Amino acid sequence: MSDKKTDVNELGEFGLIDRLTKNVDQKVDSTEFGIGDDAAVITVSDDTSLLVSTDMLIEGVHFNLMYMPLKHLGYKAVAVNVSDICAMNGVAEQITVSIAVSSRFPIEALEELYDGINTACQMYNVDLIGGDTTTSLTGLTISITAIGRAKKKEISYRSGANEFDLLVVTGDLGAAFVGLQVLEREKEVFKANPNIQPDLDGHDYIMERQLKPEARIDVIRFLKELNVVPSAMIDISDGLASEIMHLCKASNVGCRVYDEKLPIDGKTSMTAIEFNLDPVTCALNGGEDYELLFTVKQDDFDKIKGNPHMTVIGHVTDQTDGMYYVDKNGAVIELRAQGWDHFKKD
Amino acid sequence: MSDKKTDVNELGEFGLIDRLTKNVDQKVDSTEFGIGDDAAVITVSDDTSLLVSTDMLIEGVHFNLMYMPLKHLGYKAVAVNVSDICAMNGVAEQITVSIAVSSRFPIEALEELYDGINTACQMYNVDLIGGDTTTSLTGLTISITAIGRAKKKEISYRSGANEFDLLVVTGDLGAAFVGLQVLEREKEVFKANPNIQPDLDGHDYIMERQLKPEARIDVIRFLKELNVVPSAMIDISDGLASEIMHLCKASNVGCRVYDEKLPIDGKTSMTAIEFNLDPVTCALNGGEDYELLFTVKQDDFDKIKGNPHMTVIGHVTDQTDGMYYVDKNGAVIELRAQGWDHFKKD
Repeated sequence: MSDKKTDVNELGEFGLIDRLTKNVDQKVDSTEFGIGDDAAVITVSDDTSLLVSTDMLIEGVHFNLMYMPLKHLGYKAVAVNVSDICAMNGVAEQITVSIAVSSRFPIEALEELYDGINTACQMYNVDLIGGDTTTSLTGLTISITAIGRAKKKEISYRSGANEFDLLVVTGDLGAAFVGLQVLEREKEVFKANPNIQPDLDGHDYIMERQLKPEARIDVIRFLKELNVVPSAMIDISDGLASEIMHLCKASNVGCRVYDEKLPIDGKTSMTAIEFNLDPVTCALNGGEDYELLFTVKQDDFDKIKGNPHMTVIGHVTDQTDGMYYVDKNGAVIELRAQGWDHFKKD
Repeated sequence: MSDKKTDVNELGEFGLIDRLTKNVDQKVDSTEFGIGDDAAVITVSDDTSLLVSTDMLIEGVHFNLMYMPLKHLGYKAVAVNVSDICAMNGVAEQITVSIAVSSRFPIEALEELYDGINTACQMYNVDLIGGDTTTSLTGLTISITAIGRAKKKEISYRSGANEFDLLVVTGDLGAAFVGLQVLEREKEVFKANPNIQPDLDGHDYIMERQLKPEARIDVIRFLKELNVVPSAMIDISDGLASEIMHLCKASNVGCRVYDEKLPIDGKTSMTAIEFNLDPVTCALNGGEDYELLFTVKQDDFDKIKGNPHMTVIGHVTDQTDGMYYVDKNGAVIELRAQGWDHFKKD
C-alpha cells in the first residue's frame, strides 16, 4: 500500500465506485452488462437474460430503528431491490437475504424482520432462496441480492435515451422525504417527553411512502400491456434530479424538465410547506420514492397519455443543450444533484 | 412483537436460519432449489441451471485486519464464494461485491481490497458485475454473491449420498486452523513488543492456507474429465466433522470415517503438535480449509483411485448405523460438530 491516504468522503459514493472498479474487466461470455446500471445482465438463452441487483442497508446510515419498525424494514429492503429489477424493465423472481445482527436483537425481533421480508416476497411474487446469517459487533446490517428476468430486446438500460424522447415518471414524488421529516420531528418530541403521543394524524400517506415504499411492478406490467419498451429507465432512489442526471449522462443527452409538470401529492405539498420546505425541491431532491423514471419515443406518447400512473415531465435534448429544469416563471435553471449520498451524511 | 425475548445464541447459526426461514415457500417456477445447500438453483433452460450463493464477512467476527492484509481479505472473500459454487459441481461466472466501510479506511486501503478481489476474479475466471458501496458506523463489512452455472444433471446436492458410497475429501485438512494459531501467537508477541520481528519461518504453507485459501475449481475440472458426478457434495468451511454431519443429515444416511485416512500435511501436524494440538482434531474441527467433501458410487472408485487431489476417508452407511469415526486403535467414536459457529464465538 502506498503512503497516500485519501478520505472516502472526498470522492462521494459514485466517485468511489468508479475508482475501485476502474480495473474491472469482463472476460466471461455470459456477462452481458456489468457495473453501471440498476442491475447487471447475464445471458441465459438466445432471447432471455437474468438481471442481478444488490443493496446493503446499515443501521444508523440507511435506517433508524427508533421509527422504522423491523417488519417495515424487512418489507422495504425487499421492495427497493425489486425496484432495481423493475428499473431494467424486468420481473424479479428470487432474492437472497444476508443479515448481521448484534446480540441485542432477540430472535423475536428477527422474526419481525423476516415477517416483513416474507410479506414483500408474497406481494412481489419472489422467492427467498438463500442468504447468510451472522453476528455483528454493532447494529443490524442487511444485504439483499435480487434476481430477475427479462426478454433481451425488452431490457431498458440507462443509456438508451435519444433526443426528442419524452421523460416520464410514475406515481408522485417527494412524499417519502417529507414523511421522513414528520418521523424525525416526532422522534425529537418523543426524546424530549416520552409521554407525549406521536402526532401522526393526516400523515398516513406520506409516512407510508417513507416506511413502506412499493416497487412499481404494476408499471412494468402496464408497459408490457401497452406494448411500450422504454428507451431508457432508472428507479428514483436518490432523488429525481440526481437520477435524471445519471440517465442523461449514461445516454449522452441533455434534457428539459418542467417543474409545473412534476407530480406531487397534495398532502406532500401541504406538509412540506408546514416544514418550510419547497415541495418542488422535495420532489427533485428528496429521494427514496422508488418510482420509475423512463424515456419513450414520441411515437409512444398516445399509448401512455392519460395513464394515471405515468406523467410526462419533460423531454430529452441534445447533450450540448445541457440538463435544465424550467420553473413556473419560465426561468431555466441547471439541474444539480443534491440527492442522498451516504458518504456525505453527517 | 410478542414480549418473549430469546437470545440468538441459544439457537446457534443453523437453528436461527431454520427458525427464520420456516415460513418461506417457493412459488416461482424458475426456483429449482432454495435454502439449505451451498447454493440455490435457478432453472434457466431445459438442461442448465444457475447457482447462487452469498456470504457476509464482518470485521472482528470473520476476519482481523491486524494480521489479514486487505488484499488477502479481498482474495479470500471471492475464493470462499467460488468454493460454494464448486460445492454444487458448478462453475462460478460472476460475483457482486458490496462493502460498508467506516471513514477510518482511506481509499488506498479499499483499493488494496479490490486489488485482491480482482486478482481472485482473474484466477477463477469470474467477472465482478456489480455491488453496493456505503459507509458504516464501525469497521468493514463485505457481502459477496457468486453466480455460477451447471448442467442440471451434473449438480451435486448435499442430499444425494447413498449407502455404500465412498466419502472423499480433496487436498489436505487442518492447515488453515493451525495457520490461524501461528498468526494469533505472533499478534500477541507483537502486542507485547512491537519491535520483535514475527517468527513465521517455515510456516508459509499453513499461513497461506489461512490467509489465501483457494477454491477447488481444479477439482471440478478433474471430476468432469474423469466423468465422475459426485452423488453429494459440500465444501469444508466450518470443519470436516460438521460438514460430514450436514451431508449425512441431508442425505438421511450414516457414515464411517477413518482418522488414519485423513489427509494432513506434515507441516500442519508438526506445527499443531508445537501448539499442543492434536492434528486429527485440527483436521476434523478446524475449519476454513475450503476443500471439498463428496461422495461417489463404489463403481467410480477406479476413476479417482491414486488421484493426488482426492482421498477416500470412509464410506456411507445406513442412517440407523449413525455417524462415527474410527481412530487408529480401532475405537469407534460418535462424530460431533465442533466447527466454527459465529453465534457461539466468545
